[in-house]
Amino acid sequence: MDAGVTPAMSAVPVFDFDGWMRAQLARVEDALSHWVCPDAPAGLGEAMRYAVLDGGKRLRPLLVLAACEAVGGNAQAALRAACAVELIHAYSLVHDDMPCMDNDVMRRGKPTVHVPFGEARALLAGDALQALAFELLTPEDGVPPAMQARLCRELARAAGADGMAGGQAIDLASVGLQLSEDQLRQMHRLKTGALLQASVVMGAVCGQTPEGTLRALSDYGAAMGLAFQVVDDVLDVTQDSATLGKTAGKDAACDKPTYVSLMGLEAARAHAEALRAQALAALAASGLTDTRALAALADMVVRRSH
Amino acid sequence: MDAGVTPAMSAVPVFDFDGWMRAQLARVEDALSHWVCPDAPAGLGEAMRYAVLDGGKRLRPLLVLAACEAVGGNAQAALRAACAVELIHAYSLVHDDMPCMDNDVMRRGKPTVHVPFGEARALLAGDALQALAFELLTPEDGVPPAMQARLCRELARAAGADGMAGGQAIDLASVGLQLSEDQLRQMHRLKTGALLQASVVMGAVCGQTPEGTLRALSDYGAAMGLAFQVVDDVLDVTQDSATLGKTAGKDAACDKPTYVSLMGLEAARAHAEALRAQALAALAASGLTDTRALAALADMVVRRSH
Repeated sequence: MDAGVTPAMSAVPVFDFDGWMRAQLARVEDALSHWVCPDAPAGLGEAMRYAVLDGGKRLRPLLVLAACEAVGGNAQAALRAACAVELIHAYSLVHDDMPCMDNDVMRRGKPTVHVPFGEARALLAGDALQALAFELLTPEDGVPPAMQARLCRELARAAGADGMAGGQAIDLASVGLQLSEDQLRQMHRLKTGALLQASVVMGAVCGQTPEGTLRALSDYGAAMGLAFQVVDDVLDVTQDSATLGKTAGKDAACDKPTYVSLMGLEAARAHAEALRAQALAALAASGLTDTRALAALADMVVRRSH
Repeated sequence: MDAGVTPAMSAVPVFDFDGWMRAQLARVEDALSHWVCPDAPAGLGEAMRYAVLDGGKRLRPLLVLAACEAVGGNAQAALRAACAVELIHAYSLVHDDMPCMDNDVMRRGKPTVHVPFGEARALLAGDALQALAFELLTPEDGVPPAMQARLCRELARAAGADGMAGGQAIDLASVGLQLSEDQLRQMHRLKTGALLQASVVMGAVCGQTPEGTLRALSDYGAAMGLAFQVVDDVLDVTQDSATLGKTAGKDAACDKPTYVSLMGLEAARAHAEALRAQALAALAASGLTDTRALAALADMVVRRSH
């Protein structure tokens, strides 16, 4: 044994989260670039690729991949699931930015999809991205059929009327209204929480995960989903548009209810920290031996600056 | 034996297509009414139900159910698949009618979804209907997981960039252009053909269908898909809006290429008849013993008046 290395140090190597993340992001970018329809006709492929590639934090894919690693699951299934959730997220942004919705012209530091491609093609690109998500989950081989079906079920539920789309409908209807904290939580649980939570669950069902572990990871995902939105609301009032890569201060300008408008800035920050602690407690209860990537993602979500 | 009934008559009972269709349509309407989200939040459920219920010829569901019956497949899987394809079709109409696309205000004899519900909610309702299609295909039990995965794969491919959405993108880009018959066929093969063909294939994969039979049914579906569009183009110039339940003469008004503008009215009618014959020949080659419902659907598609 090298005299400078103690047994304890070699037994518990430091987890290199940055290295892990770089490697996962590279896998996801490569896969998305491969899978997102370069040959789709009539400019549709270009619009889809513009919407998806070279942008975003890829938080959802990272959650899928970290959860799959934690349970020792099927890596090929997880990569497909990681890309599928990102496609759902990307399509929702394309549609959300359109003039009839939020009418936003800047996203991830570049013009939104309908600006260069036109509204009609943006609408179709979003629609095609949603279909592609389910196509990625159902390859002819490489992923067991029962796992494919389970992944489709989780994603469809999280994306639809009882998930993301339902949350967006509540969001639309709530402009100018005074929501209670319960109502605000319900909106975000659907609008952003459902897909973040599904990301974790989808990663977990890429393995033979026991029911109790799955429940704990689902709880982690729920806490993360809410924390993400609380931090988003905090950043919307504390950061400028250049840092965020999108229009800052927009919620207040649109008279949308937020955690900051409801509970104040400091209480919202404390709430985000409490949700982080809740997420970490769920990991501790999962019975999994290595959840360091998932824990580091919780830190990243709550302590990010954009 | 009753003296008035000959052995030949009792051995080959007349197929009651109208009765069959009434029964299937009732099953589909009941299932859609049950499954299309009455409880979705913030008016989303109402918009989804408005888009789907009490309207349409339900040709795609009928193709699914007829194909499943012909192969003796899983009736529960087929009913879910029938509703899923109809939801994809319905969402595409909602988005297609929006001001940024075809800007149509009348469909199936009533105002299009964005007229009473607003554009934002129409957009979300379409998105949620697509997600619901995949949710219907992936129940927790009642349909074997491998069948669920196969159904999702077929539907996702038919709906996406290499199917319906891709065809819509070509359609958008082709306004005012002179297309060749090949280009027009390619556009329709994707825009309407892919989902009609997928309907037949999805019905067939609800059973243990041999590869050759599946290929023959897929050929039937391809001919039907094209025939449907040719007849649509014919009806667009020969029928009035009241009969069609949508705006007639619109293709010509929008300077869109059609089979009628390309080949003339009589040649388009003859082409539809030839495609019907092609569909029937594929049924004869399928090796299936009872394809009367599928044959009657081919007659219905080509000889309809609206």
